[in-house]
Amino acid sequence: MIANASRTERADAHDIGDVAAYMTTLGQAARAAATQMRRASTSDKNRALLAMADHLARRRDEVLAANAADLVRGRETGLDTALLDRLALDEARFDAMIEGLHQVAGLPDPVGEIDGLRSRPSGIQVGQMRVPLGVIGIVYESRPNVTLEAASLCLKSGNACILRGGSEARDANAAIATCIREGLLEAGLPGAAVQVVATTDRAAVGHLISMPEYVDVIIPRGGKSLIERISREARVPVIKHLDGVCHVYVDATADFDKALAIAVNAKTQRYGTCNTMETLLLDAPVADTLLPKLAAAYAEHGVALRGCERTQAILGGIAAATEEDWHAEYLAPILAIRVVDGIEAAIEHIERYGSHHTDAIVTEHYGLARRFMAEVDSSSVMVNASTRFADGFEYGLGAEIGISTDKLHARGPVGLEGLTTRKYIVLGDGQVRQ
Amino acid sequence: MIANASRTERADAHDIGDVAAYMTTLGQAARAAATQMRRASTSDKNRALLAMADHLARRRDEVLAANAADLVRGRETGLDTALLDRLALDEARFDAMIEGLHQVAGLPDPVGEIDGLRSRPSGIQVGQMRVPLGVIGIVYESRPNVTLEAASLCLKSGNACILRGGSEARDANAAIATCIREGLLEAGLPGAAVQVVATTDRAAVGHLISMPEYVDVIIPRGGKSLIERISREARVPVIKHLDGVCHVYVDATADFDKALAIAVNAKTQRYGTCNTMETLLLDAPVADTLLPKLAAAYAEHGVALRGCERTQAILGGIAAATEEDWHAEYLAPILAIRVVDGIEAAIEHIERYGSHHTDAIVTEHYGLARRFMAEVDSSSVMVNASTRFADGFEYGLGAEIGISTDKLHARGPVGLEGLTTRKYIVLGDGQVRQ
Repeated sequence: MIANASRTERADAHDIGDVAAYMTTLGQAARAAATQMRRASTSDKNRALLAMADHLARRRDEVLAANAADLVRGRETGLDTALLDRLALDEARFDAMIEGLHQVAGLPDPVGEIDGLRSRPSGIQVGQMRVPLGVIGIVYESRPNVTLEAASLCLKSGNACILRGGSEARDANAAIATCIREGLLEAGLPGAAVQVVATTDRAAVGHLISMPEYVDVIIPRGGKSLIERISREARVPVIKHLDGVCHVYVDATADFDKALAIAVNAKTQRYGTCNTMETLLLDAPVADTLLPKLAAAYAEHGVALRGCERTQAILGGIAAATEEDWHAEYLAPILAIRVVDGIEAAIEHIERYGSHHTDAIVTEHYGLARRFMAEVDSSSVMVNASTRFADGFEYGLGAEIGISTDKLHARGPVGLEGLTTRKYIVLGDGQVRQ
Repeated sequence: MIANASRTERADAHDIGDVAAYMTTLGQAARAAATQMRRASTSDKNRALLAMADHLARRRDEVLAANAADLVRGRETGLDTALLDRLALDEARFDAMIEGLHQVAGLPDPVGEIDGLRSRPSGIQVGQMRVPLGVIGIVYESRPNVTLEAASLCLKSGNACILRGGSEARDANAAIATCIREGLLEAGLPGAAVQVVATTDRAAVGHLISMPEYVDVIIPRGGKSLIERISREARVPVIKHLDGVCHVYVDATADFDKALAIAVNAKTQRYGTCNTMETLLLDAPVADTLLPKLAAAYAEHGVALRGCERTQAILGGIAAATEEDWHAEYLAPILAIRVVDGIEAAIEHIERYGSHHTDAIVTEHYGLARRFMAEVDSSSVMVNASTRFADGFEYGLGAEIGISTDKLHARGPVGLEGLTTRKYIVLGDGQVRQ
């Protein structure tokens, strides 16, 4: 975590010396490993993943002890409870890490897939082959299990990666890195296919995001300020995930029960996730009947409501929503509610205040459903479903490295495919251009 | 053209005043137009394209007169012959512009296409819908026909665009912009869907590439220095096309006639294009027999050869290739030749010196063909075909806005699809997440 790195720098066990030279060394090794990984067979990659799981199981006590040391240091340096919770590896999280490796091994390998091979009038056949991106740099914060998750997804998609975890998780990350390396070598793959940056010097991130010759893409995972800083300073393309200001719009033709279930689930199923609804938009004709029922349901969950004037008039006794509320990603049991006049106004609100992450309409009107899908410019657009479904696992990607709010390359949940690209292949029999 | 803008600035007929404010105005108008374009029907977009063609035909004399004025000014300001040639619109080029509009109208509309709609265990259906990128900024140099090409492709793919052409083509671009606007309005589409920047002040480009709130992607078309500068300074994603240092590798098992035909065609069919071969790699066993035949063929075309020591030993009397030659994009009747020992050395050479644009192998060996395809990390990889085929029309894209040497988003020739992105759509019947 960039902002916190300095506070643990003095505790850094690894004396790297010249950070720029060190990062260049990692970059060169990663580039060389990427060339080997590009040609790695699916079975070798799966063998490495399963070997990592074995080594992790074998070194369970060691990894947990390293994590315990991180936690002690974290308490000493005054990390807050939420951060300490993300940092902690209990038995269940440890088992989930091992299980995750087995799951990634079981996923289909996207590399080498050829699409749309078609014959052209010239006699050549043209298609597109899915290939690894090359070297992926991942910058993340406290959770040590991300080290394994990121490594396994980059490996399965045939990429080399350089992982820069939070300094808080230093010891656990180093122990996990050992297991990863053992797994790679056991399968005959280059150890440098996964490199964990062994310095907590914050300058390391600056170098990592400025080496286009060695790094093809950067994926930051963490808070908004980390992602914004990396996006601003990177000289390498960034697959990024900013806010999730998600909306549910309930149209006048909506089924009452579906609307109630979706509006409650989208807000209350989990508060801290990016696909949680932050603003509820209600078409005027349904507001009178739906709002009291919704208010009762939200009250049961302890959700505080902030409404527009029309919402306040119907419900009474709730806080006024300000301009700031329409922009807010609360990540908390707070909900902004606005009564609007029809789909046009709803789409305008979403366009103006939303973050193009996930937005849903609840309607039984065929034409409005189609219109909402076509016109709402978000990475996920839903009809009669909870925004909470915007997730790589729920979408069937098998895994998720993050959710992209970018428009280029990967948009929405990013799985193995998002870590690959497609090149053209041309098959001929001696054709030349006339 | 950034580098040359200042020299014609004083001749600028349009007094824009505050360039930053002007570009912001264009950006806001484009963003609003993009919202309308996103919902434009295929038939409205096609009607606009055909109306543009009609208006262009009607205003033929006017556009040609404007181009003549550009040419007079160009000669006065000392533009070189190559630049003047690119600038000139003769009758044939004018007809091609009109024909191009008809062709784009005939292409399938990629917008709205839904892929892979699948049911998930939760009961939701998940798929991906192809949608416009939004606002595309295009920066290009002297050719006025690019104005129409870029506008037609952005329009058909449902995007709004801001076009910044070369100051040399100022008058023709303005006349063409009038026809474009007439066509848009006639089809009921917003005039701001295509805006041609009406100032030659070089600061306009700086603003255009720094407005992520109004511009979703920048496509620079032009010389390497223009593209490098824009890539370096842009705060918006760039779809870029840098060098084409393309290779043909002739393997020992290659069919002699195919090798000869491809090696000659890839170099001599056109010299100034990015998919022209710049370095020929020959597997040692074929060098002795193939090189003299090749040398004779190249001599007929007036191609100057520069060879490695082994090539020099076989041919005699040709210049030595230096380290610089292996990196060179000649765009001229010059060819570097190197004798290598097998595919491993060939791939290493391509990896080290190539530009990841287009590379071909000539071979009859099945396993080597597969290996070359899998391991060469270029936007187009070919077996037994001339590198000159790397082109949107030859690939069947129907049109081409450029060839991307980036790995993310679009790689290789970029057609209508490359100007779109895919968002997830979720169809449910009231599903909520458990």
